[in-house]
Amino acid sequence: MMRISELSERSGVAIATIKYYLREGLLHQGEQVAATRAAYDDSHLRRLRLIRALLEVGRLPVAAIKQVIEAVEDESLPVHRMLGTAHHALGPAVEPEPGDDWEAAGAQVDRLIGEQGWTITPEAPTRDELAQTIVRLRQLGLPTDLTRYAEAARRLAEAEMDAIPFDGPRESAVEAVVLGTVLYGRALDTLRRLAHESESARRLAGAGEDSPGERP
Amino acid sequence: MMRISELSERSGVAIATIKYYLREGLLHQGEQVAATRAAYDDSHLRRLRLIRALLEVGRLPVAAIKQVIEAVEDESLPVHRMLGTAHHALGPAVEPEPGDDWEAAGAQVDRLIGEQGWTITPEAPTRDELAQTIVRLRQLGLPTDLTRYAEAARRLAEAEMDAIPFDGPRESAVEAVVLGTVLYGRALDTLRRLAHESESARRLAGAGEDSPGERP
Repeated sequence: MMRISELSERSGVAIATIKYYLREGLLHQGEQVAATRAAYDDSHLRRLRLIRALLEVGRLPVAAIKQVIEAVEDESLPVHRMLGTAHHALGPAVEPEPGDDWEAAGAQVDRLIGEQGWTITPEAPTRDELAQTIVRLRQLGLPTDLTRYAEAARRLAEAEMDAIPFDGPRESAVEAVVLGTVLYGRALDTLRRLAHESESARRLAGAGEDSPGERP
Repeated sequence: MMRISELSERSGVAIATIKYYLREGLLHQGEQVAATRAAYDDSHLRRLRLIRALLEVGRLPVAAIKQVIEAVEDESLPVHRMLGTAHHALGPAVEPEPGDDWEAAGAQVDRLIGEQGWTITPEAPTRDELAQTIVRLRQLGLPTDLTRYAEAARRLAEAEMDAIPFDGPRESAVEAVVLGTVLYGRALDTLRRLAHESESARRLAGAGEDSPGERP
């Protein structure tokens, strides 16, 4: 058990911020040990670590963090539903754009999910997110076949899931999912741009691109 | 040749916005055909399409768009350098964090680039971006081996480059790079989350997770 000052010191979170999380219900209350003093324990430290991960690494708004924490606290929720809530909070909010394009894209999302043999809840917002990207690709005349991407995603996700501690506290699993999704996602995005840069250098250098001013 | 009103109509960009782009130097001036009237052509239409792609799909700030357009207009710049400018504009600005962790991460980035046989300019900001992610992974105790991600990125980027029109106008190549990088990047990110969701459902359902309240 510790006072709020020690909780602040050990977590690296300012006392004023901890009080804000308590007011907002992101952090559960400590045990009241005197009229004006509460005591905190490791569960508070773990929760602060989760909030920081969601806030600083996941860059989630406080409202989304609240949703995730409600799912963590609702012990009647199976772990995979709790993780689903975290996943959904990590994506951008997408408004469906009713019309033929949207419907065709939705059908393509269903097909893609079926081909990969994935189990995805019908109301997952991730479906709309992917449909929107497909609509944009089509509008811009770019190829919309995403099979290659789905296969790469599946291979990477399978390896990532091995690192999730499903047998520990619920918070640890959510934290690992959020950190892994965001950080490896960012790494993958950066590596794609590096690969692009190298690939264009390679292709254009072969076409006499080394001497400035020349065009292939 | 067309008046500004027709340019607005054909591009879908409001006249006031076109005037703003002209003032900011994002759009080149039309041909002055009378004291108060300029005429525009297909090059203006193409440029507006590029600006919209950078703005709406790439979500780049105007300052970054200006850099990209300067690279497009500088015909003495080889195409792969011009594309490099676009790539670099697409990434977040990352401040190096001097110290042992940062140096170790930088060495790992070099090693990764070497292993993939990539050609990357030493001053590419993408290097710092990747180093920062590696530092964060290490701080959080997560595995920092990114080989699997680099390989997936390489395979995907090679296929994407086949769709870049290197033999057309410079603007078309930049536009294709920006659109492809952003849209396929977003698709990949969404698909990773879908794969995660499915994989956690699969693993946890097997552990009796179907009945609410149970923990694996």
